[in-house]
Amino acid sequence: MKKNINSLSIFGLGLIGGSFALSIKHQFPEITIYGVDQNSDHTQKALELKLVDEIKLADSLEVKQSDLVILAIPVNAIHNMLPALLTRISNNTVIIDTGSTKGTICHQVRNHPKRAQFVAAHPIAGTEYSGPEAAFPKLFAGKNNIICEFELSHRAAQDCAQWLFNLVGMTNVYMDAENHDKHLAYVSHLSHISSFMLGLTVLNIEKDEESIFNLAGSGFESTVRLARSSPEMWAPIFLQNKKYLNNALKEYISQLTHFQTKLEAGNDEELSKLMHQANKISKVLD
Amino acid sequence: MKKNINSLSIFGLGLIGGSFALSIKHQFPEITIYGVDQNSDHTQKALELKLVDEIKLADSLEVKQSDLVILAIPVNAIHNMLPALLTRISNNTVIIDTGSTKGTICHQVRNHPKRAQFVAAHPIAGTEYSGPEAAFPKLFAGKNNIICEFELSHRAAQDCAQWLFNLVGMTNVYMDAENHDKHLAYVSHLSHISSFMLGLTVLNIEKDEESIFNLAGSGFESTVRLARSSPEMWAPIFLQNKKYLNNALKEYISQLTHFQTKLEAGNDEELSKLMHQANKISKVLD
Repeated sequence: MKKNINSLSIFGLGLIGGSFALSIKHQFPEITIYGVDQNSDHTQKALELKLVDEIKLADSLEVKQSDLVILAIPVNAIHNMLPALLTRISNNTVIIDTGSTKGTICHQVRNHPKRAQFVAAHPIAGTEYSGPEAAFPKLFAGKNNIICEFELSHRAAQDCAQWLFNLVGMTNVYMDAENHDKHLAYVSHLSHISSFMLGLTVLNIEKDEESIFNLAGSGFESTVRLARSSPEMWAPIFLQNKKYLNNALKEYISQLTHFQTKLEAGNDEELSKLMHQANKISKVLD
Repeated sequence: MKKNINSLSIFGLGLIGGSFALSIKHQFPEITIYGVDQNSDHTQKALELKLVDEIKLADSLEVKQSDLVILAIPVNAIHNMLPALLTRISNNTVIIDTGSTKGTICHQVRNHPKRAQFVAAHPIAGTEYSGPEAAFPKLFAGKNNIICEFELSHRAAQDCAQWLFNLVGMTNVYMDAENHDKHLAYVSHLSHISSFMLGLTVLNIEKDEESIFNLAGSGFESTVRLARSSPEMWAPIFLQNKKYLNNALKEYISQLTHFQTKLEAGNDEELSKLMHQANKISKVLD
């Protein structure tokens, strides 16, 4: 498979795009990697860190004729760029996106004449850090990658996606875009809101007493870790997944409110019961 | 200091009590450690793991005449036992508790004739695991220990506490019991509820689809880690800290509800603003 990939373009030189670049470079140094990013700090840093060989504009000939284009930009930018980009690429170019939502993106290009050249993916990998400096080649190793509507991609595009995710060490899981968005609302997007708002609540109360954070243990750090995440990346994800995430968030608030009323009532038994139910998460995490 | 400690009794042979036992044994193998625990699985396991030298009943002569008694039992059990235990101990015995709440416990013994033999402490250390097998000698190393109302302990008790927390590698921080409970509500207890209820919300929705948890990334795992915690330990903490925790929980629910209404309204700018504010948590975590 590899022999067909001589050049590839990566849109977005942050944690995800940069980590793909490093992983590919390590294994196939002969592939030319073009980088596209509207943030000049990112392009400069990506060159310094040797993530990419050259920086290109989004509509350059090199990008349009790349064998593979990886989109690792915020999901609103994927939504805005994908149809025109599909139109402009050569007939042999494959585009793979890495967005954390799939419904809006898949829906938008479902009837595009070049839909078959696109693979809708979501590698389940990331850290709370962002930017080119956060990239590392093993980010994806041993993790799952979700591919949606794989049957709408033609054989060469399917092969290309399998080559890419295999080389970075991921296992592919296939599902439709609606199910992806519904499940990810619960097992990823909700966690981020829970963490962002926990961070905000505590900062609002403890704003004049930074020293108090010295008293926080590893438990606090673990639950607010995701509050470091990039708003530019997450606001578009939350909005594109509004339908499912709004339900998830309402259910979370409802559980918290139930717990709060039982706490206020001093209902020891009910608090214990709720926590014992929550303990079952161990079974699915291990 | 060490020369005055020939024997000590540990009530509660779980993560905290067991880790104190291991850390002391490693450094002072000549000190006799008695273990007290009403759970016979715990006492048996504690002997097997050589956490303690002998198992004793709570009102045994050896316990009453120990140089030091460490209480590492749930905070409701500390509350129930402390006054009578103080009454029974010898005049040279020091009792140090390790409970995660301090207001109720300190209030209860404030006027006890032997109050000066007691030191109210809260070592900020723990994991989501519990029981004797979870204990390890380095649990406390490099962490903070909060001591409340230190001025009510007599000099020998103060020295004993400083010896103990120094030997396990902790730094002491001093505050009054009310302030302890107020701050810990935000930087520890609220995190646990946030995590317990996140676990419960996701389990309720995804109950028939365990395979979906394969799609969860490290972010989800980080935010629900504390949902593994022991309800027997945490229900009494939440109830003893009801006043401050109830406020904290209401504020958290209010922040989440605000976020939810902005999400529902598709208010990109406001969502980003809230997340940027939450990002400031990085400054206090690093």
